[in-house]
Amino acid sequence: MIGDFMYGTPTTLLFGKGVIKHLPEVMAKYGKNVLLTYGGGSVKKLGIYDEVYKLLKDFHIVELSGIEPNPKYDPSVITGAKLCKENAIDVILSVGGGSVLDCSKAIAACAKYHGEGWDLISGKVKAKAALPIVDIITLAATGSEYDCGCVISNTAINDKRGYQDELLFPAFSFMDPEYTFSVSPWHTACGTADAINHVLEQFFSAPSSLFNDGIMISAIRSLMTNVKIALAEPTNYAARSELMYVCSWGCNGILSNGAGYSGWPMHSIEHALSAYFDITHGAGLAIITPRWMEEILSEKTLERFVTLGKGLFGFEAASEEAMARKVIRAFYEFFEEIGIPMHLGTLGVKAEKIEEMADHILANDDTSQDWAYVPLDKAALIRILEKSM
Amino acid sequence: MIGDFMYGTPTTLLFGKGVIKHLPEVMAKYGKNVLLTYGGGSVKKLGIYDEVYKLLKDFHIVELSGIEPNPKYDPSVITGAKLCKENAIDVILSVGGGSVLDCSKAIAACAKYHGEGWDLISGKVKAKAALPIVDIITLAATGSEYDCGCVISNTAINDKRGYQDELLFPAFSFMDPEYTFSVSPWHTACGTADAINHVLEQFFSAPSSLFNDGIMISAIRSLMTNVKIALAEPTNYAARSELMYVCSWGCNGILSNGAGYSGWPMHSIEHALSAYFDITHGAGLAIITPRWMEEILSEKTLERFVTLGKGLFGFEAASEEAMARKVIRAFYEFFEEIGIPMHLGTLGVKAEKIEEMADHILANDDTSQDWAYVPLDKAALIRILEKSM
Repeated sequence: MIGDFMYGTPTTLLFGKGVIKHLPEVMAKYGKNVLLTYGGGSVKKLGIYDEVYKLLKDFHIVELSGIEPNPKYDPSVITGAKLCKENAIDVILSVGGGSVLDCSKAIAACAKYHGEGWDLISGKVKAKAALPIVDIITLAATGSEYDCGCVISNTAINDKRGYQDELLFPAFSFMDPEYTFSVSPWHTACGTADAINHVLEQFFSAPSSLFNDGIMISAIRSLMTNVKIALAEPTNYAARSELMYVCSWGCNGILSNGAGYSGWPMHSIEHALSAYFDITHGAGLAIITPRWMEEILSEKTLERFVTLGKGLFGFEAASEEAMARKVIRAFYEFFEEIGIPMHLGTLGVKAEKIEEMADHILANDDTSQDWAYVPLDKAALIRILEKSM
Repeated sequence: MIGDFMYGTPTTLLFGKGVIKHLPEVMAKYGKNVLLTYGGGSVKKLGIYDEVYKLLKDFHIVELSGIEPNPKYDPSVITGAKLCKENAIDVILSVGGGSVLDCSKAIAACAKYHGEGWDLISGKVKAKAALPIVDIITLAATGSEYDCGCVISNTAINDKRGYQDELLFPAFSFMDPEYTFSVSPWHTACGTADAINHVLEQFFSAPSSLFNDGIMISAIRSLMTNVKIALAEPTNYAARSELMYVCSWGCNGILSNGAGYSGWPMHSIEHALSAYFDITHGAGLAIITPRWMEEILSEKTLERFVTLGKGLFGFEAASEEAMARKVIRAFYEFFEEIGIPMHLGTLGVKAEKIEEMADHILANDDTSQDWAYVPLDKAALIRILEKSM
């Protein structure tokens, strides 16, 4: 069944080799004053930085560089918003991966707000306006290029928040698969794990439909198949292009049209992990995934596992529970195969923080709500985290 | 591989039982002067007509009723455009199926054009503006509620044209599955056949990708499964909701992102059929489909049939060609099972017009172009039409 929904995505995707050539005509729609946001040196190594300056020679560009993974409210968002206000910025051009784009979204909202920006990000105040955002994405992972959400860390208070507002959809996303040729095996694997987890968070919800199930299974199949090709052959355009496109669907809502929202529990747990230990988001998700699946396995959820087992893996099994166990094992082995160490301890997470993190998740996220697909109380969160160590 | 593409759909879908209650707030975005377009009495029988007047009591409504299936340039589009100009219409509210909405799109463009409207529809002139369109869809079929195209017949010159312009995306589409409970078995079957054909037109193209193949197979599976439920049990909400949603994806471009355009040959043929004989579009398509498949079956296309055979039907076969034959047979039998007579003669098509129609298709459509997935010359068109009789 397709349940009630409202859906619309104003973002235009420009996809393909060399699409950057259309940048001037796109930027011209918004004005001459540009805040160019990026992270470290990779956009310079890729040549995109020089290309942007060449293409935008008639624009006035102000820069915010050094945006970090797990982007921080202080200093990045605060500094970016200040630059926008001081320079009467018309449009933000984000060049980089999901972290740069997430940070740019938060800046876009805070630049149009006169109070403390964290009030917007933490959901205390609803934004009334935001600067338009154009992005050039260089990593297949978060799907930030096709959604209206961002995740921002506030290290001062050990908080990491998912912030969504329809004002934050990018106006245009430039997606050139060649930019991802040089992404390291680690980030290729973690980005794919992130995207797979986005699909799984939405697959485990109700009501389901034949159509959405098929789309989601197709997305996971494509990600699992193409990441192996891209790891073996980093410049394989077919594999990189499909990874880039499928990743973009992760959070734009299409996958859960008609299914409603019933929580993103694995993301809630991972946000605590990377708020406390600054680990790579996709790695944290991959490690949690099979442990969360074990935790929620029950009569109620069995059908979801069976649908995945048959549709995604083509498994047969003696019982529905055996099928579910095979599915969980298959995800564990897949993540291991693409190079993710399947224990949080390896990434530096300390067991003594587990209880504190569980409290933090309960206080900041909605995993324990009645309407969650499977509500997780403190004991359940601790079990998942302990098994993940 | 995902080939180059540009994609964006500005339409917002409002989906679910009772969504019509949001009509006043949506319409208020565009102005007070409304052209209400509809066909015959079904919108009155469904109670939507009265509901619209109750909800829009503060608006000024001008009506264009009697819009016919295979909507006509003369009188419907011409009359509608004239009404818009005379009444300073701000927004068109289309209530009905794809024909009413297609007609409303043509009106939206012609209302803002001072020359002969057919110049826009026939592609001679590019529209510079169009009125905004809001629709309440009452039939799961064409997907017009989520695309920027329309098909308009000009009976004076035996022509039927597909007209596309991004100005013609509906701003909002109201989709209440309960409105389709009373759709007759014939129109339920033909609407579904239309939607299946939309997917097939895009499935047979290049390059393909694991992701898109999976989405398209999922769409066809959902349509084939749910139409049988809806025919047996017309008020089954789960089945009607899934049919309505999946149909909306038919022509909005998502399904062919990265695959490029390589013609819609079955639609080209069917447009001639219904221009000459005014048959039901979906029925014509269903009849042509297996005959077109037989015509294009070759080494080059075999892989597409095998992917359908395995992924959609779970078939096994002794050879790839045997698999293709099974797939073609399965579509034929499916359409027959849902009540479509699989011979054009039964619908009143006359064999003596076949050659004239083939010439018409060649003159007006792009089936014979080199870049078509499989170019069809006059002999091929005649073979397909003769076998379809």
